[in-house]
Formats: sequence, C-alpha cells, structure tokens
Amino acid sequence: MKEKIVIIGGVAGGASAAARLRRLSEECEIKIFERGDYISYANCGLPYHIGGAIPDRRALLLQTPQRMKERYNVDVKVHHEVTQILPQEKKVKIRDLTSGQEFFESYDKLVIATGSSPIVPPIPGIDLPGIFQVWTVPDTDRIKEYLAEHPIKRAAVIGGGFIGLEMAENLHALGLDVSIVEMADQVMAPLDYEMAKLLHSNIQKNNVSLLLGDGVKEFQKTQEGLRIVLASGAALETDMVILAIGVRPNSKIAADAGIALNARGGIIVDAGMRTGIQDIFAVGDVVEVEDFVDGERTMIPLAGPANKQGRLAADNLLGAREEYAGTQGTSIAKVFDLCAAATGHNEKQLQKQGKIKGKDYDTVMIVQNSHATYYPGAKQMFLKLIYEMDTGRLLGGQAVGSDGVDKRIDALSIAMRFGGGVDDLTRLEIAYAPPFASAKDAVNMLGFVAQNARRGLVKFVPWNITETKEENMVLLDVRTPGEYAEFRIPGAVNIPLDELRSRLGELEREKHYVVICAVGVRAYLAARILSNNAFPQVSIYPGGMTYYRAIQ
Amino acid sequence: MKEKIVIIGGVAGGASAAARLRRLSEECEIKIFERGDYISYANCGLPYHIGGAIPDRRALLLQTPQRMKERYNVDVKVHHEVTQILPQEKKVKIRDLTSGQEFFESYDKLVIATGSSPIVPPIPGIDLPGIFQVWTVPDTDRIKEYLAEHPIKRAAVIGGGFIGLEMAENLHALGLDVSIVEMADQVMAPLDYEMAKLLHSNIQKNNVSLLLGDGVKEFQKTQEGLRIVLASGAALETDMVILAIGVRPNSKIAADAGIALNARGGIIVDAGMRTGIQDIFAVGDVVEVEDFVDGERTMIPLAGPANKQGRLAADNLLGAREEYAGTQGTSIAKVFDLCAAATGHNEKQLQKQGKIKGKDYDTVMIVQNSHATYYPGAKQMFLKLIYEMDTGRLLGGQAVGSDGVDKRIDALSIAMRFGGGVDDLTRLEIAYAPPFASAKDAVNMLGFVAQNARRGLVKFVPWNITETKEENMVLLDVRTPGEYAEFRIPGAVNIPLDELRSRLGELEREKHYVVICAVGVRAYLAARILSNNAFPQVSIYPGGMTYYRAIQ
Repeated sequence: MKEKIVIIGGVAGGASAAARLRRLSEECEIKIFERGDYISYANCGLPYHIGGAIPDRRALLLQTPQRMKERYNVDVKVHHEVTQILPQEKKVKIRDLTSGQEFFESYDKLVIATGSSPIVPPIPGIDLPGIFQVWTVPDTDRIKEYLAEHPIKRAAVIGGGFIGLEMAENLHALGLDVSIVEMADQVMAPLDYEMAKLLHSNIQKNNVSLLLGDGVKEFQKTQEGLRIVLASGAALETDMVILAIGVRPNSKIAADAGIALNARGGIIVDAGMRTGIQDIFAVGDVVEVEDFVDGERTMIPLAGPANKQGRLAADNLLGAREEYAGTQGTSIAKVFDLCAAATGHNEKQLQKQGKIKGKDYDTVMIVQNSHATYYPGAKQMFLKLIYEMDTGRLLGGQAVGSDGVDKRIDALSIAMRFGGGVDDLTRLEIAYAPPFASAKDAVNMLGFVAQNARRGLVKFVPWNITETKEENMVLLDVRTPGEYAEFRIPGAVNIPLDELRSRLGELEREKHYVVICAVGVRAYLAARILSNNAFPQVSIYPGGMTYYRAIQ
Repeated sequence: MKEKIVIIGGVAGGASAAARLRRLSEECEIKIFERGDYISYANCGLPYHIGGAIPDRRALLLQTPQRMKERYNVDVKVHHEVTQILPQEKKVKIRDLTSGQEFFESYDKLVIATGSSPIVPPIPGIDLPGIFQVWTVPDTDRIKEYLAEHPIKRAAVIGGGFIGLEMAENLHALGLDVSIVEMADQVMAPLDYEMAKLLHSNIQKNNVSLLLGDGVKEFQKTQEGLRIVLASGAALETDMVILAIGVRPNSKIAADAGIALNARGGIIVDAGMRTGIQDIFAVGDVVEVEDFVDGERTMIPLAGPANKQGRLAADNLLGAREEYAGTQGTSIAKVFDLCAAATGHNEKQLQKQGKIKGKDYDTVMIVQNSHATYYPGAKQMFLKLIYEMDTGRLLGGQAVGSDGVDKRIDALSIAMRFGGGVDDLTRLEIAYAPPFASAKDAVNMLGFVAQNARRGLVKFVPWNITETKEENMVLLDVRTPGEYAEFRIPGAVNIPLDELRSRLGELEREKHYVVICAVGVRAYLAARILSNNAFPQVSIYPGGMTYYRAIQ
C-alpha cells in the first residue's frame, strides 16, 4: 500500500522531513501544505538581507515548490492553510488562501511543522504603518520596500534578543539611527547579566541607543514619524519600528484536534516526535522538547533542532525507532563588533529553579585570547563556565568576543552533550597551531581554572564587588606602576606582582584581599603567593581590568 | 623540609611544570637547567617569524630567566647542560656551556623535560653552509641572518610535515622560489593520501614545486649555491635548505641513568608522568604516551600535550594523583591557502595495524560549507571521518579547507575524547547563525552520512575509482547538462537528477552505477532513487566533482 504523508508547514522541520522521507522511500506520497508564500527559506538570513550582507533575495529561497516536485516528487501547496485536523477520519481541512475554497485531504501519517509566529502584543497603535516584524520573506520584502520608499533616518527595535540585535546591527549598517528597547535589564537572554554588559557597552560604542528595563505602552503616529511611549513615561521618536519580542508556537489546530499542549502552547511529543494521537508527529518550533541539561520539558525554538527533528521524525514515520536526545539551546549571534554565544543553562535559569551559587553550582569567568598571543590578530574572548558544585558536571557556558567564540562554545556544547565535567575540559585536545588556538587553549583554561576553584586553590569575587565593596576588603592591583597610573579602579592599592613577596609585610592578615591584574594571570599567581603565605582571605577579580574596562 | 625540585629543560613542559609548582607552593626550591639560550619560547611561531608574520622577535620569548626569578622565584640557568643523572645519589651533573665548568646539583625530585631535537641524517654534505634546521630561536636567527646577508632566490625544504610546510609557506611569502622534497608519496603524514592530495594541488598552484617519493642522497656545494642530489638520481639546484624531517627524543641522559626507554628512545612513564625511577618524572616530547584511540604506547611530540603534562607532573610532584589520559594527536597546520587538520588515527595507521576497511573500520568523506551557503564568505571544506565498523565509535577525523576546518576537527576531537560514535555526531549542537555554521552543521552531516552508510542507505566508492575503473561500472553524472558540458570525468554519462525518475528505463540493472554530482547532495538523492527502484549496485563518488577537480 502506498502510504500518504501530509506535512503541515514547509519551512525548516517540514521541509527536512519531506526530503528525508523521499530519500528513504520512492513509494510514499508526500504532500506539504504551507500557509505562507515560501517553503524552506533562510529564516536566519532575513536580517542580513535587509542590511545588504546577503544582497540577492533569491539566496534566501533554499527550495521552491517546483523544485520539490521535480527533484523530490513532493507536492507542495503554498498559500494553503490547514484549518482543522480530524484525527478520527485521518484527514485535514485546508483553505486555499488565494481562492478561499476549502477542501479535505486524507493522510495515513501527519506531520505538524507549523512553527512559531512573532508575538504581537495588544499595544495601542501596534497596527500603525511603519511597524514591522521579521519572520518571513514577505516581512523582509515589506521592510525593504518601506526603507526604499521612505528616506527615513531612525529605527527602533523592540526586543533585545537574537533577531532584535541582528536587526539593530543591520539597520545600523544601512546608516539608520537605531534604538533598542528591551523590557529586561539586559539584551540576549541566554547570557547572564555580567556577560550581556559586554554587549551593552559595545552597542553603545556603536552609537546605538539602548533602553533597558523599559517596555512599550503605546505607539503613536506623529507628524514626522512614530512616537513610542514607554512604560517609564519616556518617549522615543522614530521612523520605523521592528518588533522582535519573541515567538509563540502555532499550535491552535493541534489543540483543536485534541492534541495535548503544554502551558506555553507547545505540542507535547515523545522522544520519537510522536504527539499523543496515533500517526500524528510534530517537529520544530511548535513542539515542547526535553531540556538536555536537566531533563525538564521546555520550548527552544531554534533552526538546528527543528531540522534535526524533521529528519528524525521522517525516519520514525517509516518505522524506525530513533529518539531525539533533547536540546541544549546552543546559540550564537553576531552583535556589532562582537559575537555572543551560549549553551546549556545560565545562572538566571538555575536561580529560578532555586539553585544556589556556591552550594549547588559555581561559575568561573576568564579572559583568553582567540589564538596564540604572539601570532598577529589574536582577540580577547570572555568565557564563562557554569558547573555543578558536587560533581563538576558542566551545566552551561557563555562566550563574548570578536573572534573564536563560536568554536569555544561548540567545544563546551559538545563536552556537555557527553555529560562532561570540569576535569574533562582540561583534557580536550583543541587543534593547535599559532593562527588557530593556544597550546593550552581557552577551553582547557576554563577547565584548569574551574579545577583550581574546586580544589580551593583560587576563589573569585563577583564582578560587581567594586560597587558593593565590603568594609574589610582591599582591592590589590598587582600590575606595574605604569599600568596602574594609566587607569585603575578607585580605591585599588598597587603592589606590582614582582614586588609582592618582598612587600608582604605591608599587608594585614585580617583583610580580604581581592587581587586584580590585566586579565587574571598575574592576579592568580599573586593570590597564590598570598594564600601560600597564610593570608586567610584572598580572592581574584574575574576578568581583571580587561573586563572592568569593557563594561564601563 | 624545603623540597628541592630540579627541572632539566625549560621550554614547554619544563616551564609549565615550574610555573605550576610555584603556584602550588611557595615553599619548594625550583631550579631549571636549560642547555639552550632561551626558555619558554614560541617554538610553533618560529616559521612565522622567519616569514615576517610575527615581525617582533621579542614576541617569541614568552618567558625569560630574569622574569622567572622575579615572578616565580625559580632559578633558571641557560647554557647549562645536564650531562648525567645520578639517581642513587639524587643529583645531576651539569656543564656550564659558557665556562666549560662542571658541577653537581642535588635534587629531591627531578623532572626530565629535555624535549626532542631535529633528526639530522648522515647525508654527505649535510654540514654545508646554507643548510638549516628550525627548532630553536638561534636556528631562526641563523636563517634570518643568512637571508639578510645572501640575496638568494631559491630555497628547498626537506620534509613535508607541519614544520616543513609552514617553512615552505613562509619562505614563499618572502618571495623565494621554493621546492619541497618529501620521501613519502604525500605531505602531512596525519592525513590520508586522498586528503593530502588536496594540499598537493594547492601547493603546486602556489608555484611551489613538490617532489614526492624522493629522498636526499647528497648535498653538494656549487658555484651558484647548493645542489641536492636525490635518491632517484634527479638533482635540485637551490640556495638554501631547510631540514624538517622529524624529531627524536633527547633521552640519552635518561637512558644512561638506567631509566627505561621504548624502541624509539622515548622515556617510558606511567599515567602520573613518573619514570621507572623513584622521584624522577618526565614530560613533553621526550616521553612515550598512551595513544588515546587504542591504548597503545606511542610518541606524539606536540606543544599541547607537553604543556598539559608539565602542569600535571607538577601536581603529582607535590603529592597529587592526577593521571594523564593519553594523546589523540589532534593537530592543525596552515598550508598556503588551506588549513589541514586531523585527530585520532588515519587509515594508514589502521592498515599498518592490520585493520581492514569495510570489515574493521569504514570511512566517509564529504564536502561541506564553512557556514550557511547563503551568507557571504562560505568556503568549502573536505571532511573525512573514520569509525569502527561494529560499533560506530569514532577513530579519527581529517579536514582540509580554507576556513572553519579548525572548529570541525575540534568537534571531532572532543567527541572522540568522550568515546563518541557516529550517532553522537548527529546530535551535537554546533552554535548556528548564518555567519558561523549551518543549521545541520558539517559535523552533524558527517554523522548523518556515516549513519546512512552504516544502515546501508548509501555506499561510497574509493576516490580513485576513476583511475581503476571496473568493467561493469557506469559513472552517472546527475548534474545539469550545462555543468556536465563545462567539465566532466571522461566516460561519465549524464542524466540530470530531475530527469532520473523518468529515464530509469535507460539504465541497466546489471551495471554498477557510481553517481556523481557537484558535492554529493544530488548524488545522494539520485543513488537513493536508484536503490529504491531496485537497482542492486549503486554507489556515490565521495566529494563529487568538487573533490575530483580539486585534486587535478
């Protein structure tokens, strides 16, 4: 019997499933219904097409309905919305969005790959012209048209996540005066606050204004353009608005059909991507997945997982017993001069779960070069590692820098995937030649430093200790007098590292010495000298003056 | 009691051990004896200083004896050669190479970090002026001086390993007419032949002449310069010669002291870096290590392992029980326009061990882009994976390309470190945004393809099938007629993929169809169409026309 497989949605997960199905079988009949105008397009490339980095619009269209027919023998109908799933009768109801006609299509197996849609909150004025979202190719066309037809100077991006920041960067690249409004106190939610601060200062250095901790109350049309009235009462004048405040799963038809959803509207699937109803699978942004780190159920709308789930569902549709092994949420974004990347859990998430730093988990943050310092072009990277206190198991990693950040987060992501711990990081072989890495690479260093912390050889203070200075604390700057004279943290005392051993008599045993240098190498040795000389309270300022200056 | 630790050799492993020792303890006395002029220098940077990429010579000197004293309270004596170890008396005999005086130094614990030295074979004429090795800072000085004083035009590099190729590239960058002579039939021994071929053609495209499968019989002085008489009888006229044919461990003093060596002269150590004699440790190029892949004993002289071993030995010297977990041999080199990287075992090694392809192990080779194809600047990479036949366990990986090769080899190296297999690669989360990777990244694709091969969905022919064509074989080119017309493999038959289903009648079931396209995507689908239509003998040409053309 020729099996008939219907796929609802033809972008990432849906198109992957269809292609894989055809490669596995010439027999089955495969139909995709896509309510939008395009299938399998480069969602993640849209901001770069607007900014001009991807000049050719055709480059965004990875696959066309015609090609899917010719090459994969897959029937694709765009502008066709599935409006109802009838699991009892094993058919779906479809509306042709062009003609308005409705019809039914039967299926033997069904794949729901309806994805997600941008959240459009019910803010007064949200429908005003000049307010856009960036999710589909037509969204992109509309923005480009608007930019072409209106010689505007200003743009505001609402939302400081991946897409918001990529849009801010691309609009800035077009010469616009860009503002970012973000309700949280930081951009890029996957990062912890102190890592996001590195982005904040770089965004501002690029003359993009950043309004944190403020939400939109109303959009108003003005004579010159648009006014954004903020929750704080402030107002922002602009000419165009990009909404990028998050997405929600397109799961209504699934819910209506009696398919179980989670509280956030995600379709609940088993490890084989099967919904609660026989012969109905679901993949991509619309599904709930297992959080790889803690086994909890979560929503992680990312292209990588969607594509992999599509492929895996296809295997299982044809009888395999593959299991999706959870999502870590490994992600990266280019943000002006920097790249920001993360994997696993951050501290905010852990704390929300009631975990306590220094009891349940601990962190280290270090500054490392992207490759051997002596080879030209080495760039500084800020790397943060989060690990379980008892076991040293890796829980998450974060990285901010201008080069080499991607491969270090990949290394952490992979080590985590295998359940790796701090000690494992010390053993990883990162391919080394001067243009590529360091003999003890940044990833190894994260392991070494965390290992030292676990063994009690070093202790770090929080990055903001300089603001919340304890009474008893002395900030001990062990750089050279020249470095100290050039720039220092107010109140820091200078004893150059090379003089420390001979000047121990100047120090008081009852003080808490927080040692700082440029990046941390000298501070580490200085802290060890103090500890080995029986000073009881010695800590290191993480990331040294390099971090401190980067966030000013 | 103040413990006295003597370290023989102050470059990578020795300097690492000293610095770690001091950070662990202010108490112990640490002395380094280094027979050379410098400690802790950037060995791996020397070719780049010669070529000018690292213009400042001081950048090579990572640490000085004076700094080691001031900062680490470590006594360093350069120009001091340890000539004898007396384990019974726990002392070493030292010759001051400047004064010629000899003296004894006692130790409580001893670290042998004598490294390795370039092999200088007893070839007639090897001592002629203009013949150099590249191992130390003075070697580099001599080469730079020679270049400055002699307006030479030609240089020959003997040996096509890392250093040989880096030297060839750097001398070429200086405008010299460079030749490489290599005794094996390929450069870069960590790569298999078909991967090295990619380097061969690129080297030749850079107008560097490459003499493979030929050795040096004699060096002769001529009126204009030097003549290299080759084993084949050919002769090569040049002005300067760089010898880079490998290294051997500096283990004579260890052997004389009764410390056990392996057949290749490597000091035998346990996992804690302890030699067979009480209180004597050894680290770096001079030691034998465990091959991580198969647990055998081997020699892998690389900077990363040396540094890590130095640190680990220091921990153990002071009572820890750390274990070195073996070396995978992960390595990388920039070679003209390409980077070449490898980890684990290659096929040559496996075959030397009697392993058989298709029985004990199998391989896949694929062509992938360094990041999303639609984002500008994506570069093609050639990736090879070697895995165990039964279990799918990863045995090795190789990569050649101009960008993104480092992070893919790191990914394989890390997955291997955790004992990962083919299926694990499909699950790795490589941080994806268009400038950095692909949604299904190259590393995932290696997993997917190998998984398909393991499940019998696809089969690959050897890369050289086009040379050793079987009688029954038809090379089926499924690219467009335009692509086929532009360039094709002689004898290939063209049926464009999109016409294949309708033209199956033209094919004969008893033939072996080897399908080829540009990179492999279309060939994969075409092969599946044939297999699903019950053609019994269907294979794919690995890497497609992209590989075929790259090696022409």
